[in-house]
Amino acid sequence: MDRETVFRKKIIGVIGGHSCHKKVEQLAQNLGKKLAKVVDFLVCGGLGGVMSAVCKGFKEGGGITIGIIPSYDKDTANPYVDIVIPTGLGLARNVLVVKTAEVVIALPGEYGTLSEIAYCLQLGVPVISLKSWNIKGVIKAKTIEEVIDKVKEILKI
Amino acid sequence: MDRETVFRKKIIGVIGGHSCHKKVEQLAQNLGKKLAKVVDFLVCGGLGGVMSAVCKGFKEGGGITIGIIPSYDKDTANPYVDIVIPTGLGLARNVLVVKTAEVVIALPGEYGTLSEIAYCLQLGVPVISLKSWNIKGVIKAKTIEEVIDKVKEILKI
Amino acid sequence: MDRETVFRKKIIGVIGGHSCHKKVEQLAQNLGKKLAKVVDFLVCGGLGGVMSAVCKGFKEGGGITIGIIPSYDKDTANPYVDIVIPTGLGLARNVLVVKTAEVVIALPGEYGTLSEIAYCLQLGVPVISLKSWNIKGVIKAKTIEEVIDKVKEILKI
Amino acid sequence: MDRETVFRKKIIGVIGGHSCHKKVEQLAQNLGKKLAKVVDFLVCGGLGGVMSAVCKGFKEGGGITIGIIPSYDKDTANPYVDIVIPTGLGLARNVLVVKTAEVVIALPGEYGTLSEIAYCLQLGVPVISLKSWNIKGVIKAKTIEEVIDKVKEILKI
Repeated sequence: MDRETVFRKKIIGVIGGHSCHKKVEQLAQNLGKKLAKVVDFLVCGGLGGVMSAVCKGFKEGGGITIGIIPSYDKDTANPYVDIVIPTGLGLARNVLVVKTAEVVIALPGEYGTLSEIAYCLQLGVPVISLKSWNIKGVIKAKTIEEVIDKVKEILKI
Repeated sequence: MDRETVFRKKIIGVIGGHSCHKKVEQLAQNLGKKLAKVVDFLVCGGLGGVMSAVCKGFKEGGGITIGIIPSYDKDTANPYVDIVIPTGLGLARNVLVVKTAEVVIALPGEYGTLSEIAYCLQLGVPVISLKSWNIKGVIKAKTIEEVIDKVKEILKI
Repeated sequence: MDRETVFRKKIIGVIGGHSCHKKVEQLAQNLGKKLAKVVDFLVCGGLGGVMSAVCKGFKEGGGITIGIIPSYDKDTANPYVDIVIPTGLGLARNVLVVKTAEVVIALPGEYGTLSEIAYCLQLGVPVISLKSWNIKGVIKAKTIEEVIDKVKEILKI
Repeated sequence: MDRETVFRKKIIGVIGGHSCHKKVEQLAQNLGKKLAKVVDFLVCGGLGGVMSAVCKGFKEGGGITIGIIPSYDKDTANPYVDIVIPTGLGLARNVLVVKTAEVVIALPGEYGTLSEIAYCLQLGVPVISLKSWNIKGVIKAKTIEEVIDKVKEILKI
């Protein structure tokens, strides 16, 4: 990797449930793979479900993954996380996940995902919802292609 | 105050916008005053708007108020906070506010309030919505009286 | 308790090991009892050892105790904590403990205590060492009486 | 960069003052350059002084730098940080810096550095002191070469 391209590289965030249906998992993996063509780094909560699947896809696409996990135990991160940040902060780590990203993509998830969407909206981080919570202020997308287009538009790339 | 009554006293949480309409402010103050007849301690985010109004009412009712604030500067807490916890954690302090409470009441607010509702639902803290966000899982109430009834029911008092 | 006297009441902090010798435990309990004659609120990390003993003494002296604990589980606080703040922040909660206090007293403890002394010195919270770490910048005291005198001097009471 | 070599790559931590003498700055930069020959990732607090100098050297040596900063503002990170984690946690972020590293090297610094050394010792992260605080439990080194040897020994590389 060219050193120049790494410097203050854009980081994309993906949030979603730590357990999810097979179909959502497939969606996350496909999304990850395509996102890796757009940016070099992905950040997520580092655990299972959507987080694991999107990391797997992003690594398949050639990107580097960052997992900001709730515990101090690096082994609780999913195996597709390259860089583990073991915060020990519990759910308070949610705000770090979204603030580290230039833009966040929300996939289906429960209340943890909702808290992260709320943080995006409060902190002014653009958040694209793909089949996730429909909260006033989120950018809605129906397909991975639409997500990619919106990401490129936001990051001006 | 009788020492016995303080021990592991129930704490009620109130969340809502740091700026709000006069009418919501009045609602918060009235709520605070009535809550003070039910529990001895109130916890909130310690800033202005709903937080300031509910503290004012709760103190008028004879209760003790706890403000868990985002900065290190105790002077940023509203004047009706008795006990200031200056976290320096920014928005990550939201999770502390709701987890400190046995039950949380949500008044109108923006995305900060939404993140706190989400944390309640994720952590299993009962949350009563009074003219606030309508998220699946919240307990809805239409009046202060209804809120008080539900609080008593939840706290078994 | 008179409502007026509670308002922005001074809070004293005590730090020290979560396990300790019987002698240190006795020292902590005695200190707590005497501190309760000076201030109304005590804050600590809420766990065992020095924290439990100082809370016990402070309550015997008639004060109200605040425990800022690392987990989300209020039941992990010692039984002498009146107000539990369950942070879920792990060791990151150390900074909250010392910043909540107007002045901190350090009793014997290991590295957790050292991190808290360091935070006091960095944040400008006066810290009195009673048989604890001897770090440049701490105020040294040899007896409980000396501690009480210094606390009164610092709080101007 | 080979994907295989990135996976759960070892991360080295460097701590030290946010302002420092020219000589310490030079030491930090040299250390950074040599560390980049040993590991691929460096983590630090992301600000100035020692942090800036060590990042500069590490990047000159070809490594990737992670800065875990206290604020939400990525622009407060020094220009040699590749990956910025904007925590908004204030000083509570110190524990994240050291826990993210497999081994930590302490250079001269004030109380912030001391709190990080304390966290290393409490969390069991090996910490090598090069002209920094001399606390029971730290591994002492007198030269950069000695530091490198000890790092290789600890990481078994």
